[in-house]
Amino acid sequence: MTATPPPTPVTLNLDDDVAGLTGQLIDIYSVSDSETPLADAVEVQLRSLPKLTVTRIGDTVVARTEFKRDTRVVLAGHLDTVPLPTVEGARAQVPGVWDGETLYGRGAVDMKGGVAVQLVLARLIGAAESPEIDRDVTWVFYDHEEVASEASGLGRVAREAPELLEADFAVLLEPTNGVVEGGCNGTCRYEITFDGVAAHSGRAWKGVNAIHQAAALLDALAQYEPATISVQGLDYREGLNAVRIRGGVAGNVIPDTCVMEVNYRFAPDKTLDEAHQHVREVLAGAGVDWDQVRITDASSAARPGLDHPAAVEFVNAVGGEPLPKYGWTDVARFSELGVPAVNFGPGDALLAHTDHEHVDAEAVRVCLQALRRWLLG
Amino acid sequence: MTATPPPTPVTLNLDDDVAGLTGQLIDIYSVSDSETPLADAVEVQLRSLPKLTVTRIGDTVVARTEFKRDTRVVLAGHLDTVPLPTVEGARAQVPGVWDGETLYGRGAVDMKGGVAVQLVLARLIGAAESPEIDRDVTWVFYDHEEVASEASGLGRVAREAPELLEADFAVLLEPTNGVVEGGCNGTCRYEITFDGVAAHSGRAWKGVNAIHQAAALLDALAQYEPATISVQGLDYREGLNAVRIRGGVAGNVIPDTCVMEVNYRFAPDKTLDEAHQHVREVLAGAGVDWDQVRITDASSAARPGLDHPAAVEFVNAVGGEPLPKYGWTDVARFSELGVPAVNFGPGDALLAHTDHEHVDAEAVRVCLQALRRWLLG
Repeated sequence: MTATPPPTPVTLNLDDDVAGLTGQLIDIYSVSDSETPLADAVEVQLRSLPKLTVTRIGDTVVARTEFKRDTRVVLAGHLDTVPLPTVEGARAQVPGVWDGETLYGRGAVDMKGGVAVQLVLARLIGAAESPEIDRDVTWVFYDHEEVASEASGLGRVAREAPELLEADFAVLLEPTNGVVEGGCNGTCRYEITFDGVAAHSGRAWKGVNAIHQAAALLDALAQYEPATISVQGLDYREGLNAVRIRGGVAGNVIPDTCVMEVNYRFAPDKTLDEAHQHVREVLAGAGVDWDQVRITDASSAARPGLDHPAAVEFVNAVGGEPLPKYGWTDVARFSELGVPAVNFGPGDALLAHTDHEHVDAEAVRVCLQALRRWLLG
Repeated sequence: MTATPPPTPVTLNLDDDVAGLTGQLIDIYSVSDSETPLADAVEVQLRSLPKLTVTRIGDTVVARTEFKRDTRVVLAGHLDTVPLPTVEGARAQVPGVWDGETLYGRGAVDMKGGVAVQLVLARLIGAAESPEIDRDVTWVFYDHEEVASEASGLGRVAREAPELLEADFAVLLEPTNGVVEGGCNGTCRYEITFDGVAAHSGRAWKGVNAIHQAAALLDALAQYEPATISVQGLDYREGLNAVRIRGGVAGNVIPDTCVMEVNYRFAPDKTLDEAHQHVREVLAGAGVDWDQVRITDASSAARPGLDHPAAVEFVNAVGGEPLPKYGWTDVARFSELGVPAVNFGPGDALLAHTDHEHVDAEAVRVCLQALRRWLLG
């Protein structure tokens, strides 16, 4: 018997143009649960940079400078992608394909462009001949962002080695079209069950129609006027929506159960408990008892934190007018750790997860320039 | 090669007590689409009775006296049953089982008790030594009642040989607990589609929530007060109900479609068109356009016809106070052919299709006595 040698990681070339490096990253398949080859390739490069201290936890790689500066900032991004599209003609494939100056491929915007920017900055700051800088920097490349929240590599580090994430400010390189997006809305989901009594629909008066029981709540949701709430100068639009409903078993039976799923997206002026309380009040107004409700998902909102001096410096350096982030992102995790965080990355978030995911080379380059200006002057 | 001889039909003993004959009928498996052995057994017996003219169409057997009387009445019943229960311990099986004077088995009430009554009356009237009677009688034993309306053996005869069904009055021996149930409500089903525009639920204002579009109609249905309508002295209770609803694709997507199925059970004062018109008005009041509606089922109501002289004689002979029939039955088919019809049979209709379907021997005997009194005096 001969032992199989461990596979050699794919070699990334960090000296490539940042758009070219994005293409190299796309070419390493890394759908959630298959991040190991990409994490290996990233780890090897980071370990070759003498000014960085590298820690590997699962498929998450953390690299840190240890300059003993007063301020530490985090650059974070996830290595995994959603699955490849199965429809014919889809272009969000692996490997990626250039069409002129546009790069098509799975992860092009979500978020291998951002990871490429992180890696080029690591080379610029971590190499032996790098210039001195006046902040310490932590890079986090993590696994399992696109799946259930419990699986997140960032969450794992926060539990197992929270000291690695200590910082004054964090930038998450999720796609924002190169605009600073501060904080994020929270999101909660509720499954509401309406019970009735089954009967033959020819004798409806012998039953209680569970679908009809849902009418008052559905009406309340249709009438609901979501708030727009200003937090630290950014306007967060909320939303309260029925996202799923199902009820009934046959065309001649009065249904004895109807289940509605409601999603509340709430501004960062509220804690999770305050969000639940608000939903509870809306439901009570429609005659729904809290006993009928099961909370199926609950993720905190994150305040933008743009009043923090490190955030002010960042916004001044990269320019532009900050916007609120509506979707939930891992800035909420940093927020929970006490680290103000913003989203700032290349590409259009609306292309994430689509069958034609793509990013322009220029968007990745402009993002790198902005962060370089901030960190290296 | 030897040819396989055609199978010999199971021999029914029509001289048995009518409750015992019910047991014989249950023991011949006849779930819809498997009626042939039972139809064969019935046909053989009817052909042995010299005063009857027998016609076989598919698995439907029609037998008629040809006494040239002024009045002809029909005794109709279906040979098929719903499938056997699969739950452990269920007693609606084949063969049937006696528990004291109660007969358990599939079809015990729906409707082999009624078929047994029909067969004993055929023997009493069709045999060579039978007494003279002052009406002609038609027996119809038909297939495929428990499945889609188009498959009905009674419908097939109505299309292919309507002259066989010509009569002044019809009795359908569906279970009614030995009470005359007149006419039946009609039933229509409507599938109503609400369209929206999909969007990420974090940016709900970019979409249109299709489930919310359904709120006004659901509210109208919950508020709807069904009418009770008196037709020829019987009170028919109507009903308008959402029987199914489904909408939504994922917990983070504003749904772009929601489909509701509505069932209208309407009294025999209305034609099908009038029923549709009523539903159209209710829907319009909730902002639903008729273009959103697909009619998925439409069965006419049947007037009780209890003012017809033949019906009056029948009610006087069998006794009791007639009730309205709420569920749809094949009396509506006779009604469409211009033959007033009532339901009158042994057993409790609420036990039909259940896992513990059963009938009391006495109920079958009492039903036979009532019809015998009517026909033979």
